[in-house]
Amino acid sequence: MYVSLLGDCFCILLLGSKYFPDHRLPENVVATTDAKSALLGADYCLHAVPVQFSASFLESVAEYVDPGLPFISLSKGLELNTLRMMAQIIPQALRNPRQPFVALSGPSFALELMDKLPTAMVVASKDKKLANTVQQLLASSHLRISTSSDVTGVEIAGALKNVLAIAAGIVEGMNLGNNSMAALVSQGCSEIRWLATKMGAKPTTITGLSGTGDIMLTCFVNLSRNRTVGVRLGSGEKLENILSSMSQVAEGVSTAGAVIALAQKYNVKMPVLTAVARIIDNELTPKKAVFELMSLPQVILILL
Amino acid sequence: MYVSLLGDCFCILLLGSKYFPDHRLPENVVATTDAKSALLGADYCLHAVPVQFSASFLESVAEYVDPGLPFISLSKGLELNTLRMMAQIIPQALRNPRQPFVALSGPSFALELMDKLPTAMVVASKDKKLANTVQQLLASSHLRISTSSDVTGVEIAGALKNVLAIAAGIVEGMNLGNNSMAALVSQGCSEIRWLATKMGAKPTTITGLSGTGDIMLTCFVNLSRNRTVGVRLGSGEKLENILSSMSQVAEGVSTAGAVIALAQKYNVKMPVLTAVARIIDNELTPKKAVFELMSLPQVILILL
Repeated sequence: MYVSLLGDCFCILLLGSKYFPDHRLPENVVATTDAKSALLGADYCLHAVPVQFSASFLESVAEYVDPGLPFISLSKGLELNTLRMMAQIIPQALRNPRQPFVALSGPSFALELMDKLPTAMVVASKDKKLANTVQQLLASSHLRISTSSDVTGVEIAGALKNVLAIAAGIVEGMNLGNNSMAALVSQGCSEIRWLATKMGAKPTTITGLSGTGDIMLTCFVNLSRNRTVGVRLGSGEKLENILSSMSQVAEGVSTAGAVIALAQKYNVKMPVLTAVARIIDNELTPKKAVFELMSLPQVILILL
Repeated sequence: MYVSLLGDCFCILLLGSKYFPDHRLPENVVATTDAKSALLGADYCLHAVPVQFSASFLESVAEYVDPGLPFISLSKGLELNTLRMMAQIIPQALRNPRQPFVALSGPSFALELMDKLPTAMVVASKDKKLANTVQQLLASSHLRISTSSDVTGVEIAGALKNVLAIAAGIVEGMNLGNNSMAALVSQGCSEIRWLATKMGAKPTTITGLSGTGDIMLTCFVNLSRNRTVGVRLGSGEKLENILSSMSQVAEGVSTAGAVIALAQKYNVKMPVLTAVARIIDNELTPKKAVFELMSLPQVILILL
């Protein structure tokens, strides 16, 4: 079995040193900057290139991709301007509408996975057989994989949780307390569900493991990059300073830019998620955002 | 306006000293052990007596309760044996099926409320006008109150979140990590929703502020008594030792006893919540419970 992993090659090379100094790459993992050798002969491809760079990257390597090679996407987000997610980006960039596609998502900090702590994730594909095969490929005694056919639900929750994580960070950065955090995150879960169902997703995907489950982890536990961006915004730092000091991509910042367009396109009220977009665009201060949210008529905020 | 608060009188007396030494009771709050003087002439009654003791307590003071006095219930749980919640217990104990009733619930740590940090809660009543009146009574610039007609949904989520908090504590006590915690809590949210909808609740109540919102707070933040019971169970302590060392009631322990009966009565599969009940009844060790949950067929665990 040969599985290709497309991603930030620096990440892969640095796995064993910078980010996770106590962990070694397995001996059967080889890092390369040569896409051709990574892709030719692969049985599966794990795709972990950040969403905003995926299309151009895939176009540049398309010639090495077998049209039957299944792509397992780990990338979470919406492409600015086009509002596409990976299920659209990958086949379009490869000019193959039938390129097999699976989205992998769920609450899974890498460090805990590496430490073999029990973790549960979801693989979503329109192709039920492929979802089952990828489930078999990835599942182990400490990694429980379930399958879903709701690709849109799994992808949109994975994308928007990063925006909500910025909101959660802002609440923490402003020292508003846990009551506020819980109110904000549950409101955000509802907003994501409202939008997702209008996009054709099942509401139970958003309330399930890859929705609420992942949102809870990202918003309540302090390890995510997106949340860190929010904490620094909430404590008064400027976005430019924050981003220039970070070595890794915080997908939520780009995805936030797509939220206002999505809310308009699908005619959904999303006061929390659009507030994050406006804060990032410097149209709103965090303080004013909290005041606005506390003053909204309850009919918008609460008939969840 | 005269609001009576029925509850653990020690709690009220101690508010300003033992539990919250940095906070004083407002000057217009008077503590008394005389139910008659507390109840006569009251415009509203906040009911905070633990669920298992509510019926006998209310029967003993029923003669002082005006049949038009609205009860605002803060108590969360299910009465063992009868499986009743406060919306049934209060009118039945007072022998007045029309006693006005409101349930107050939502993510609200007392300390943060006292510090005037922004908080959002829900009041639920079959009587829409009463819900609106209580909303006006309680709302302030830092406390946002929304109304709901789904009393069953608000009460069952408030009751079962305490059982789920014990499960969350167990995961922490066993050092299983945040990925496990998120998977467990999202599964628990789904189980509560399955049961609640069979009991007549709206699914959106369970996914909203007084459901998922309160569950996130109770399960991910380390302040609750129920969660503490779980942490100690997960690290191997015996339940008897834990309970005998606690000065306050952990409602989740009693409520867990009702979970298996509820699951049978409504024919709902609830692997996480019933595992907590079996651990408390000493029929299952935490370690075996985790193994069982990781081995369940995905169709039970995941079609959320």
